[in-house]
Amino acid sequence: MLKKTRQNKNVPELRQDLVTGEWVAIAEKRVERPQEFVKRDAELLNTSFKKCPFETSPQASAKEKPVLLYKNKNETDWTLQIVLNLYPVFTHTGQCKDIFQVGPYFAIEGAGLHEIVITRDHKRHLALMSNGEVTEVVRAYHQRYNEIKNDECVKYVSIFHNHGPEAGASISHPHSQIVATPVVPSDVHRSLEGSKSYEDKNKKCVHCIIIGWEKEDKKRILFENDSFIAFVPFVSRVNFEIQIFPKEHRSNFEETPKEQFSQLADVLRKSLRVLYDTLDNPSYNFFIHTAPADHGEHKHYHWHIEIFPKTNTWGGIELGTGMEVLMISPENAAKYLKKHI
Amino acid sequence: MLKKTRQNKNVPELRQDLVTGEWVAIAEKRVERPQEFVKRDAELLNTSFKKCPFETSPQASAKEKPVLLYKNKNETDWTLQIVLNLYPVFTHTGQCKDIFQVGPYFAIEGAGLHEIVITRDHKRHLALMSNGEVTEVVRAYHQRYNEIKNDECVKYVSIFHNHGPEAGASISHPHSQIVATPVVPSDVHRSLEGSKSYEDKNKKCVHCIIIGWEKEDKKRILFENDSFIAFVPFVSRVNFEIQIFPKEHRSNFEETPKEQFSQLADVLRKSLRVLYDTLDNPSYNFFIHTAPADHGEHKHYHWHIEIFPKTNTWGGIELGTGMEVLMISPENAAKYLKKHI
Repeated sequence: MLKKTRQNKNVPELRQDLVTGEWVAIAEKRVERPQEFVKRDAELLNTSFKKCPFETSPQASAKEKPVLLYKNKNETDWTLQIVLNLYPVFTHTGQCKDIFQVGPYFAIEGAGLHEIVITRDHKRHLALMSNGEVTEVVRAYHQRYNEIKNDECVKYVSIFHNHGPEAGASISHPHSQIVATPVVPSDVHRSLEGSKSYEDKNKKCVHCIIIGWEKEDKKRILFENDSFIAFVPFVSRVNFEIQIFPKEHRSNFEETPKEQFSQLADVLRKSLRVLYDTLDNPSYNFFIHTAPADHGEHKHYHWHIEIFPKTNTWGGIELGTGMEVLMISPENAAKYLKKHI
Repeated sequence: MLKKTRQNKNVPELRQDLVTGEWVAIAEKRVERPQEFVKRDAELLNTSFKKCPFETSPQASAKEKPVLLYKNKNETDWTLQIVLNLYPVFTHTGQCKDIFQVGPYFAIEGAGLHEIVITRDHKRHLALMSNGEVTEVVRAYHQRYNEIKNDECVKYVSIFHNHGPEAGASISHPHSQIVATPVVPSDVHRSLEGSKSYEDKNKKCVHCIIIGWEKEDKKRILFENDSFIAFVPFVSRVNFEIQIFPKEHRSNFEETPKEQFSQLADVLRKSLRVLYDTLDNPSYNFFIHTAPADHGEHKHYHWHIEIFPKTNTWGGIELGTGMEVLMISPENAAKYLKKHI
């Protein structure tokens, strides 16, 4: 039996589209004038060192002490910490929420988590870090993912990173984000369904087929080590997109063996670095797509990272049809990138 | 039997994602250096009157004479014209193309059309036009749609409008675009499937249910006349989104009776105007979602317009999960907008 009303007005709300089944999240922000909702991209300037909320004391800007803290060898300073986001899209409520009805619609309270992974240096972003530093970031993602996934209310954990104003990063100090959601988001659901139906039909993991094709065609591969491979996918959604896959079939990011962290850091760092070198430090987003934390059966899935450099703005074609337009073929994008490897 | 190779390297190519079934279009642009692919939004300045390619002679910048031309009463000047896009994503090839295979993937040549609908004044955009002027734009969309849909190679016709640099408009002179595609794009397909499955289950048009709920709940309705209604949808994908529906159930935009053009122009113009007044001339995209031109059975569909003002940048949450985050509830957005009505 569905509840008919919402319990807590202060918690963000998720609503499901009646036609597409997609969820949107409503996390209200208080403003004086409606114009304040409009962020002109030119206004998204770099946060100066002095004003950076992460610089002197990230804890001061967070509600509670860090949920994870790494220190340097002598323990004289921190090197990485994870804090709760002060402006969360999903908030920890301490109990699982039920879907409720509003007219013909379904909705659910935005119970979950929203955390920030902060690295120490105000300016040195992932492309410019050492392999050891990026390995520490991978270790932090992994550790925190494994802690969060045990929460029985959590259906999906998304780890992502926004770099630069055109990619929606409002604070320039390098940081990633981890959100835990009470529903499996639509894109993830679609990716799961698609890979399931491919496997049912072809008896093979669709991502293994994709990796096999890239290895056979050779044109778009950028980096490879024993455990991971990075390439510009044959079907890219943005110019210069890069995807990173574990070579071995593995559904869940959190099952990555610790001895492979450094190899994952290697291809991630090199991928971000080649974009930095080729495209003059572009804004970018990257995110991990992994099997949901919903205790379901997702063996057919193959976790991976997608990196989207921001080279242009999606307009009416993309928004109105869902068909992205590339101005450079994945083959030529790979050719350009390889010149800087 | 699928063809194995592509016929014409100069025509854009569409490729289908192996996991999601989504299509992307590759329309290559020649550049000197890869950095030129990166458009920093701050660089997207207004095109000055002198340099505007549409101002003195749109024909001069097009390959051929206008495909549609409206003149003023005395025929001393043009008021609206439609020309072929000089940099088309879909090109007219004169013959239908077949899907072909590349490794495990499907692809098709980007045969179709890509046209620009240009209104006369360099600065006066839709929000600032008279109802008569916007009615002429609606009439042009309608006339051209009905001409294009008869092309047997065309599966879908998308009409959209980008306003402002943050919405991807690279030329500031007001213009809309019409693209005709050789496949039904993924978002349209999903919307069709969703409305079909809702109707199968509930024996009612999902969009009629949505309109009914908005009328019952009253909180989000902005404009209404005999034939059309405009509201901030209960599930919006962006802050201050507005959707416009014909009140009568109608699947196809092109079947809109001519006597309703002025009423459609009325709600479209007022919707754009209230965004202009409330959000200080924001960038926006709008697009028409209508049943495909593929001669299939789509009676369950209900055509409509979606207007997306651009208030923020989608980051890793949106790109990585497909879950959009609103910073204002649709109810509060409607409340703000109503103050300017």
